[in-house]
Amino acid sequence: MADPITFYFDFSSPYGYLAAEQIGPIAARHRRDVLWRPILLGAIFKTSGGKPLSEFGLKWTYAQREVARMARRQTLPPFVLPQPFPFLALAASRAFYWLEATDPRRAAPFARAAFRGAFAEGRDMSLPIAVAGAAQLVGIDDAALMEALDDKRWKDRLREETDQALARGVFGSPFFLVDGEPFWGVERLAEIDAWLASGGW
Amino acid sequence: MADPITFYFDFSSPYGYLAAEQIGPIAARHRRDVLWRPILLGAIFKTSGGKPLSEFGLKWTYAQREVARMARRQTLPPFVLPQPFPFLALAASRAFYWLEATDPRRAAPFARAAFRGAFAEGRDMSLPIAVAGAAQLVGIDDAALMEALDDKRWKDRLREETDQALARGVFGSPFFLVDGEPFWGVERLAEIDAWLASGGW
Repeated sequence: MADPITFYFDFSSPYGYLAAEQIGPIAARHRRDVLWRPILLGAIFKTSGGKPLSEFGLKWTYAQREVARMARRQTLPPFVLPQPFPFLALAASRAFYWLEATDPRRAAPFARAAFRGAFAEGRDMSLPIAVAGAAQLVGIDDAALMEALDDKRWKDRLREETDQALARGVFGSPFFLVDGEPFWGVERLAEIDAWLASGGW
Repeated sequence: MADPITFYFDFSSPYGYLAAEQIGPIAARHRRDVLWRPILLGAIFKTSGGKPLSEFGLKWTYAQREVARMARRQTLPPFVLPQPFPFLALAASRAFYWLEATDPRRAAPFARAAFRGAFAEGRDMSLPIAVAGAAQLVGIDDAALMEALDDKRWKDRLREETDQALARGVFGSPFFLVDGEPFWGVERLAEIDAWLASGGW
């Protein structure tokens, strides 16, 4: 099997949520795995000079309309903006890396459940209890998860993955690497699909 | 015929160039006209707080790679970044509105020629002489064009169109309005195509 598609995202990113609902089938069509990589955009913005979407005025007005429109097109539940927004996705991201190491089959389903908790149900996914709730939905022991959140291994892991993402030029969410080629934004998924079908251009 | 697709762009926008090469066939497929609307993003950024793409560090590194990649996919000439970049597109924009009023069939071909001058040939399209050169290519009298550039009517017109774009929520280039629905970015053209085919979602 060829190399996986690396899928960088911040759990606080609405466009990351939309991508999480689409990347699996696209990768499967081309017999690729997906390497899910939650990162903290806030940490990246400190170096890149970026800002959260919600600080962009007109662009933020547009983005809220667009993510709702894209959710309709993908026949997802009505888009909900959680409060606070953006939120610090420490707990969900650490939980993901813990799961990937200990129960890898459940890691991607958990990520999708956490995203849906935020953007379909409007939960405050910065809270460990909300993250544990999403984990329960996909059969994960929530007590073990709460314990893992304080484990230095997963804290360090999240920091390392975020640093590596930055070193690879990641500046936003979602961000994909396909055989070294970078693609930014959920609307580039169609381009990735065509790229994989044709071998690139 | 249904309302035209309004296509806002800045002549200094590489993604605007890529969109200018695609919007015609997409609109024609759905029996729509295109209302080409050059604007000055610099003026919009003063209100919106936006910045030129070239000030975005990692995103700019990515964007240069991406526009070259998209140009290859569209089988356009190799992408060239003109110097200086970004440039102030006063002359090309005023020339466009003059043409639209006086020789409307040539306005869109002129816009495409001006874009190609910048991003396929690397010319400094902030210069009236370069704009006149692009106009000559599509059969426009360059002396008449040079005279029009100093006409207050087209100066005012450009300012009014830019103000109106801002009032409609335009914050970047390309930006499309389809029956009142906003779409930002060249990669949304596929979404516009699907939207027009299905009647929206």
